[in-house]
Amino acid sequence: MPEIMPPDSVGLVQPQVLHFEEPLELDCGRTLPSYDLVIETYGSLNADASNAVLICHALSGHHHAAGYHSMDERKPGWWDSCIGPGKPIDTNDFFVVSLNNLGGCHGSTGPCSVNPEDGRVYGPDFPVVTVRDWVHSQARLADRLGIRQWASVVGGSLGGMQALQWSISYPDRLRSAVIIASTPRLSAQNIAFNEVARRAISSDPDFHGGRYAEHNTLPRNGLRLARMVGHITYLSDASMGEKFGRELRDHVYQFGMGTEFQVESYLNYQGERFSEHFDANTYLLMTRVLDYFDPARDFDNSLSKAVSGGNCRFLVISFSTDWRFAPARSEELVDAMIDARRDVSYAEVDAPWGHDAFLIPTPRYTNLFTRFMKRVAWEGQHAAS
Amino acid sequence: MPEIMPPDSVGLVQPQVLHFEEPLELDCGRTLPSYDLVIETYGSLNADASNAVLICHALSGHHHAAGYHSMDERKPGWWDSCIGPGKPIDTNDFFVVSLNNLGGCHGSTGPCSVNPEDGRVYGPDFPVVTVRDWVHSQARLADRLGIRQWASVVGGSLGGMQALQWSISYPDRLRSAVIIASTPRLSAQNIAFNEVARRAISSDPDFHGGRYAEHNTLPRNGLRLARMVGHITYLSDASMGEKFGRELRDHVYQFGMGTEFQVESYLNYQGERFSEHFDANTYLLMTRVLDYFDPARDFDNSLSKAVSGGNCRFLVISFSTDWRFAPARSEELVDAMIDARRDVSYAEVDAPWGHDAFLIPTPRYTNLFTRFMKRVAWEGQHAAS
Repeated sequence: MPEIMPPDSVGLVQPQVLHFEEPLELDCGRTLPSYDLVIETYGSLNADASNAVLICHALSGHHHAAGYHSMDERKPGWWDSCIGPGKPIDTNDFFVVSLNNLGGCHGSTGPCSVNPEDGRVYGPDFPVVTVRDWVHSQARLADRLGIRQWASVVGGSLGGMQALQWSISYPDRLRSAVIIASTPRLSAQNIAFNEVARRAISSDPDFHGGRYAEHNTLPRNGLRLARMVGHITYLSDASMGEKFGRELRDHVYQFGMGTEFQVESYLNYQGERFSEHFDANTYLLMTRVLDYFDPARDFDNSLSKAVSGGNCRFLVISFSTDWRFAPARSEELVDAMIDARRDVSYAEVDAPWGHDAFLIPTPRYTNLFTRFMKRVAWEGQHAAS
Repeated sequence: MPEIMPPDSVGLVQPQVLHFEEPLELDCGRTLPSYDLVIETYGSLNADASNAVLICHALSGHHHAAGYHSMDERKPGWWDSCIGPGKPIDTNDFFVVSLNNLGGCHGSTGPCSVNPEDGRVYGPDFPVVTVRDWVHSQARLADRLGIRQWASVVGGSLGGMQALQWSISYPDRLRSAVIIASTPRLSAQNIAFNEVARRAISSDPDFHGGRYAEHNTLPRNGLRLARMVGHITYLSDASMGEKFGRELRDHVYQFGMGTEFQVESYLNYQGERFSEHFDANTYLLMTRVLDYFDPARDFDNSLSKAVSGGNCRFLVISFSTDWRFAPARSEELVDAMIDARRDVSYAEVDAPWGHDAFLIPTPRYTNLFTRFMKRVAWEGQHAAS
């Protein structure tokens, strides 16, 4: 909670809910008859609507990417370090749009919403969406906001997949894409970790086949386990070592099964906190969205064919200690882009924090990101003048 | 199941149970009043008992390391690839002793045993043992077998920790130690994965505080999850990719939460199978044995002080894609040994299988291991003649 608003903050922000009546056909073959998207915006849209940036969130993210909902809010939005005046996504230059994706649990239509067709909460019946479905829904959002072409579509991790998919699905509707700590497809190991998370949730006796709400309960334990596993994959061995090492809670070994090491305590706390506010059906959905993402699949398994359309400029960033989506995965994407003669800049940033590094501002990362976005802003003004 | 016994097999083997009446004082401050150890032996002890090799098992291992219990047994012992005539631990040279450790669930005294003091199954009351406790119990086993000094103490992973501890606790009672795919202490990340496993087991409603036997149930789901997480850490991203990639079970996306990818199917099968035969309290114990191992702790946190006693020769082997106990962890140990002017040979073997590589015979690994053991055998004969 800020005592006074920091000068580089976008300040107090308010989410807004947009309702869409036109049915959305999904990859799974089902159709969402209507849906809501909750968004936040930061900065101002310019006269020719050429300065809009779309922020795409990762697995457990949401629309609240920057600023504060109130002066009492403990922490700002999840990517406040990168969005605001003077920050990489500079709100002096850009009109920033951040949404909660379909299937989410922060206000957009998802498993916790009521199905208009039968008046019942969707729960496990909410359709399995894909990155492509999200991008379609985001294109409609752009239409609604009067944005024909994004200056940039930006995201880390699963968010980066959406930026990539934008360049494939709507190559003319973005001037640039920023793909951070991401991958063109999950590996078997990535899917395996997701499966452990899914199994932990679905085997929790409180899950009730996803109908926990009707049983007035929550599969808290499963969610906690899922988050604990996930959390380990977001950090690096080195950063966990740096932060916790083998530090004990009580200085001597207790020779029991209680919490002994600080890292256990931290992990249990993270899991516990997460399980109190995140929806289990949404978590399951999000892991499947990750698993299914594989744009090369639609192009004879050729990633370079997949990325060959359009003219948008790419910035791809990876982090040296990210073992969830390691630099090699970004390089695979970059190689395909080079093969397809796309305009791509790539950097592997040296940072100790593993996958989470995309959320942590470090000079090389933010400077690189800033310079790229400045160029995008300059080219937007230049083209418009 | 072999149709005919392979010529390089130790053949049909039989476990034997040794009972120890002398109480064993444990690191946790408690005492085991008496206990059983189940062992197997392969090869023959020579006249001066100078050719004995002790095999120490890893987390879910046991005494059945080589050969077959019957011609109907589907698979030989867990390290059959390395133990037998002409194999690295050549039974023409050595008398090999393999045991199930205290706390295990394969015949040695552990949580499934009856506490002689109250006639009740130990369950969660079985004391938390340590690598040091195990080594003490193994020293008594050596006494019982008339072995004053091991030609070698050998182990992979947690087994390697026991070999290392032998060189510290009983420096005069071994001529060599082979420490494979191991580490001188767990990292925060290692402990974190163990904690997820423990939490999965202990939060299973069928766990009943470890008294599941009395409730005629088993915490199968928790064990399954624990094993799934563990299994991912035993393999490398590359080997999982090689084996499963993104292969689907049914060729097309099902857009559901059922088993979709082959890797999910494999992982669920592994977890399921494990949960049917492994004891949950033992699993909890074994993870704590791993967590607590930290021999430097007894020597002002100096690993080189810890390894400075005695004259045994060391062979340390790591595997390039092992991310559970990465080569850097073995190098830390080797550096401490060099610092302490110990006789140590070290190799990082290039192998794609992650941590499990220690169980898989590859030419460079087995040749290296064989040459070292041949030298140990030769020196034993030389010293004896």
